[in-house]
Amino acid sequence: MSNRIGGQTIKLENPPCILSRATIVGKKEGEGPLGEFFDVVLKDDYFGEKSWEKAECRMFQEAAMLAITKAGKQVQDINYLFGGDLLNQIITANYAARNLGIPFFGLYGACSTLTESMSLGAITISGRYADLVLCATSSHFCTAERQFRYPLEMGAQRSPTAQWTVTGAGAFLLSNDDKPPYITYITTGKLIDYGITDANNMGAAMAPAAAAAIKAHFEDTQQGPDAYDLIVTGDLGSFGRDLAIDLLKKEGYDIADRFIDCGCEIFSDDQDVHAGASGCACSAVVFGAHILKNMEEGKYKRILLLSTGALLSTTSVQQGESIPSIAHAVVIDMNRG
Amino acid sequence: MSNRIGGQTIKLENPPCILSRATIVGKKEGEGPLGEFFDVVLKDDYFGEKSWEKAECRMFQEAAMLAITKAGKQVQDINYLFGGDLLNQIITANYAARNLGIPFFGLYGACSTLTESMSLGAITISGRYADLVLCATSSHFCTAERQFRYPLEMGAQRSPTAQWTVTGAGAFLLSNDDKPPYITYITTGKLIDYGITDANNMGAAMAPAAAAAIKAHFEDTQQGPDAYDLIVTGDLGSFGRDLAIDLLKKEGYDIADRFIDCGCEIFSDDQDVHAGASGCACSAVVFGAHILKNMEEGKYKRILLLSTGALLSTTSVQQGESIPSIAHAVVIDMNRG
Repeated sequence: MSNRIGGQTIKLENPPCILSRATIVGKKEGEGPLGEFFDVVLKDDYFGEKSWEKAECRMFQEAAMLAITKAGKQVQDINYLFGGDLLNQIITANYAARNLGIPFFGLYGACSTLTESMSLGAITISGRYADLVLCATSSHFCTAERQFRYPLEMGAQRSPTAQWTVTGAGAFLLSNDDKPPYITYITTGKLIDYGITDANNMGAAMAPAAAAAIKAHFEDTQQGPDAYDLIVTGDLGSFGRDLAIDLLKKEGYDIADRFIDCGCEIFSDDQDVHAGASGCACSAVVFGAHILKNMEEGKYKRILLLSTGALLSTTSVQQGESIPSIAHAVVIDMNRG
Repeated sequence: MSNRIGGQTIKLENPPCILSRATIVGKKEGEGPLGEFFDVVLKDDYFGEKSWEKAECRMFQEAAMLAITKAGKQVQDINYLFGGDLLNQIITANYAARNLGIPFFGLYGACSTLTESMSLGAITISGRYADLVLCATSSHFCTAERQFRYPLEMGAQRSPTAQWTVTGAGAFLLSNDDKPPYITYITTGKLIDYGITDANNMGAAMAPAAAAAIKAHFEDTQQGPDAYDLIVTGDLGSFGRDLAIDLLKKEGYDIADRFIDCGCEIFSDDQDVHAGASGCACSAVVFGAHILKNMEEGKYKRILLLSTGALLSTTSVQQGESIPSIAHAVVIDMNRG
């Protein structure tokens, strides 16, 4: 009766398309190897606002508006906004949603927000409950550091496994148009907890969740790595990327020759970001500006995209809890499936 | 093409049903006028755990398990959990989802989480992407007070407009069975901001959002208050309830004779809660234990249920932002629509 094809996976009978997308990044991200591909690069991380939080909100909102106008649409054409961010009570997404005035479903999935929002947006369009859905997320190095770690003014030393939160926002307009690329499958993650308690080693916390979601996707669809030109994770960083490869090898899947992590792509080695990048914006801007462009240019026909979230809070860390993580996978396909 | 019937409203072609529900509340809630209707009343607000946060997580998890077992189902039968709570990074829902092991979509809508989760759960089932979806939320007076306001040990005086966060959790199992009650319409809220900056007057912040969602629902469905035996809001409290009535009267809708707010129902006047109750659990436990029971007993055939969320954070308040709010409406109907 339902479109379910396995424990965690659904195949979308009417695959929605990604009609348009927009990416905005901070100065440092603009100086990285993908700098030329982003729609907007900030001159400084305040973006003309009085606080970093307000700057992040403005990035979210402007990415959303840019995705809408690129598609030749207007705000009132959009049926739903699915969005979230890293900040307490997702204030970035909330204030942006207030300013945009679009019916809003607020999400919290930490850095898994991109594929969480795309999963729910795709279900809503595929089920014919919406014609146009906007999926958006953001993060900001300065807002994340002072919320999750230390005041920036303190200049705390960063550990080798630390990752650098991407300053940026990405927005994706999904529609029921028949125009590639399409979202054809959705694999929804479970919380996975390997007992990691070091909030500066989120790659190790997230890698098992990414590996579990990839494994679930392969099993549910009865396909392996060969079915994809590229497998992309959100922000495992260099340690987490290697760990995910190892964990999947133990399960009998070798993904190493077609696997990239957005957290290892956005900055160059000489940008001093230690284990790589992280943040909701990491997969959003790398996928939006770089990977989708490569798909449109024919480099990749079918990819498996997973955003990965470490679901900790300062309270949970202080109370000695380990860090559970989640990864949601979507298949992006230039064919309708 | 789509099932949309207005700017913010959809009619569900295959209305899902609420197959089972469970409610757990704290000691004070158990001593209130609805005390006898809750499934579980805690003896103390630690629930055998070492912290209030862990107690809240245990309530969430046990409410979820109780809803599942009441329906004669097992955890592995549940396709998705849609849930959220008030705490930073929704740690309650995350850790409960980890322990439950169900594919999870994390939501943040503050006290609007109940109807946000029911909206998305209903879309997912109605679109045939799931057979069984669990919607759950929680709040805890002690975790909310120390996160949003003051340390409890400080004994800060509460203002007349202050509301008391409900300690409790509610879980609802949605399915595609043909068994009343059904969820037949969904009206998704926009963020509404009337410029309220007093974090101790959330009723005034939320009432305009509730009124706007009720008005949108009436306009989209071309029906008025007469179409409902009861209109229920989440946690406006006594000030917010009166304000919502006034705002709708100005729009030409008189709802006063069939309107209740869950925040005015759960505690009695002598329980010293000032303007009433609040919290994600407020609408969840009052709807689950009290209103659904009345529907099953024939008192109400068709109700409009709105959970209402004030989308503030301590950071946004400190930066002088006003408090935007949201309300999501669902129609609960003993007939299939």
